[in-house]
Amino acid sequence: MKFKLEATDPKSNARAGLVTTDHGTIETPIFMPVGTAAAVKAVHKHELIEDIKAQIILGNTYHLYLRPGLDILEKAGGLHSFNGFTRPQLTDSGGYQVYSLADSRKISESGVSFKSHIDGMKLFFTPERVMDIQRTIGADIIMAFDECTPYPCDYEYAKNSMERTHRWLKRCCERFDGTDAKYGYDQTLFPIVQGSTYTDLRKQSAEFIASQNREGNAIGGLSVGEPAEEMYAMTDVVTAILPKDKPRYLMGVGTPVNILENIALGIDMFDCVMPTRNARNGMLFTSEGIINIRNAKWQDDFSPIDPNGTSYVDSGYSKAYLRHLIISKEILGAQIASIHNLAFYLWLVGEARKHIIAGDFASWKNTMVKKLDYRL
Amino acid sequence: MKFKLEATDPKSNARAGLVTTDHGTIETPIFMPVGTAAAVKAVHKHELIEDIKAQIILGNTYHLYLRPGLDILEKAGGLHSFNGFTRPQLTDSGGYQVYSLADSRKISESGVSFKSHIDGMKLFFTPERVMDIQRTIGADIIMAFDECTPYPCDYEYAKNSMERTHRWLKRCCERFDGTDAKYGYDQTLFPIVQGSTYTDLRKQSAEFIASQNREGNAIGGLSVGEPAEEMYAMTDVVTAILPKDKPRYLMGVGTPVNILENIALGIDMFDCVMPTRNARNGMLFTSEGIINIRNAKWQDDFSPIDPNGTSYVDSGYSKAYLRHLIISKEILGAQIASIHNLAFYLWLVGEARKHIIAGDFASWKNTMVKKLDYRL
Ligand SMILES: [Zn+2]
Ligand SMILES: [Zn+2]
Repeated sequence: MKFKLEATDPKSNARAGLVTTDHGTIETPIFMPVGTAAAVKAVHKHELIEDIKAQIILGNTYHLYLRPGLDILEKAGGLHSFNGFTRPQLTDSGGYQVYSLADSRKISESGVSFKSHIDGMKLFFTPERVMDIQRTIGADIIMAFDECTPYPCDYEYAKNSMERTHRWLKRCCERFDGTDAKYGYDQTLFPIVQGSTYTDLRKQSAEFIASQNREGNAIGGLSVGEPAEEMYAMTDVVTAILPKDKPRYLMGVGTPVNILENIALGIDMFDCVMPTRNARNGMLFTSEGIINIRNAKWQDDFSPIDPNGTSYVDSGYSKAYLRHLIISKEILGAQIASIHNLAFYLWLVGEARKHIIAGDFASWKNTMVKKLDYRL
Repeated sequence: MKFKLEATDPKSNARAGLVTTDHGTIETPIFMPVGTAAAVKAVHKHELIEDIKAQIILGNTYHLYLRPGLDILEKAGGLHSFNGFTRPQLTDSGGYQVYSLADSRKISESGVSFKSHIDGMKLFFTPERVMDIQRTIGADIIMAFDECTPYPCDYEYAKNSMERTHRWLKRCCERFDGTDAKYGYDQTLFPIVQGSTYTDLRKQSAEFIASQNREGNAIGGLSVGEPAEEMYAMTDVVTAILPKDKPRYLMGVGTPVNILENIALGIDMFDCVMPTRNARNGMLFTSEGIINIRNAKWQDDFSPIDPNGTSYVDSGYSKAYLRHLIISKEILGAQIASIHNLAFYLWLVGEARKHIIAGDFASWKNTMVKKLDYRL
């Protein structure tokens, strides 16, 4: 993997760059649609490319490990062959899902034991095992196995957990560096900064992560319920320490406003289930604000879903029709809203990139964030 | 509406024709994908046209009446404007759904009282009301309000019900002929032959329906649980009586084999939820037989879904991937399988049409029906 820093905004820490993997180049800042189980929910792969303009998607190791399982992914020749998305892909480490989904998890120095949320099967993930699993899944960018602390989290727990995450990182790196990619293209490992909402822990963690000198770095444990201001404060502390010449990935973030604010703080990569999950519930993000399409005010509004939208669904379907589909729980409603929201997120980071390169990101961002939260 | 009979198979009663409506011409025999609530489940409208090659789709009056409701459909300018499918559309009369879905229905000479399956609201459908409703929905072809008898049905009930359906038909025709289309294009009313599985009743009903001299005729009350041989016997009795110069629509049928056998008996139009409903459960219809994609044998079969398939999903996704999506209840699985099955149904009727025109339908049909039921 290579990273080229192309431009930095003069009035913020926002950056534009290029991340190059063996599956192609990603223009940053970028948003990665979440394809939990080797598929972005309700979206065809050609729609990801042609309509949404996705440059990279994310898969969840925990889900892929359970279904379809490593045996099938390996026989397929890895995740790209399996799901047919030939652009870059990233997998998380399963850490977040193990803590939020699995039953009766038990953490120890060696790893985490837990039960599958699907069939209750007992499983045990160690840092080494998670590297092996991600080698077999075959994403271009893979993540270290960490503990994602909840919010709020007491200082003592956050500190111990962070230190264990650091010890686990060393084991991840050792295993990763001692094994080869399986499918003829390179993989790279991103470590994850933890430390909850404690400035001193975040600093300590960022310094440790930076010292590992990997090709890119991630920030985890945010967007777990803390106020946005705390999230931004932590991002700010961490990006001041992480090296400038490597991409920075803020995991699981967030709303359109969260994304712009964190771009301003120097983040290059994002993922979040929000655009797809909220789409299925009828919440649409637009450049003028948020639409709850279930609201009765849209029932006889036959205007296009989003006159400023960039994907064909925005002009090809009306608000009244989409409202009817969502209210009627028609699958097509989820399809239309998911394409809209993802295309909007990709448009938003693309615009941010243009403004960073043009040098007027900060003022554009301040104008946008006022509109993005408005309830239409 | 116009119907042009183009060709009749020399060795069966199969026919090829053209049905022309103000929204375009339909080549028969034709299969109509079911778009219950103004949407074919899991399928975009451009996929209906480009990938599935749908020429006409069907909406359900009962569902459309409940959601989005007549007020919104009328404000939209009718069903075509509302769902954006600009080719012909047909609506059933709600009769079938009133009997199969609604609660505490009560039938009388004037009409049927029932409760909505959505919110329990008390409703009353009369033949006149159902004509008015379908005028407002605005499909090109609309159906008479009938009673669809269950199977088995005792003779006395079937006879009384048929006679009431005939009396209701007169009221339907009177109301329909006394009202105008609302949106500037023509609508036509198809009456429905009933009579359960009783040859003498079916004959009597077909004669009565034929005598009404509408632009097309339908056969209802079949594919409700009776053996296929009884269905074919009833179709045969009825098509011998219905006029040759008008299209014949067999409602709610059926499997690929059912469709070919009924084409051989002189049916021109079909609809069924089977290709879409079964798709969502992982059952795929192909020219070589039926695939239950949930079967473990497909889990590491990375070959295309259907090498003989005509839509892009057939070559664009593998069996193993589709199996994974269906097992994981991913929406994308329903999308892929629905496009495949509908494209297959449209391919099947298109092939039938070619063979009718070529004059070798009967032998082609006999070869095909042996393969279509085979479990792959
Ligand atoms: Zn999130
Ligand atoms: Zn059916």
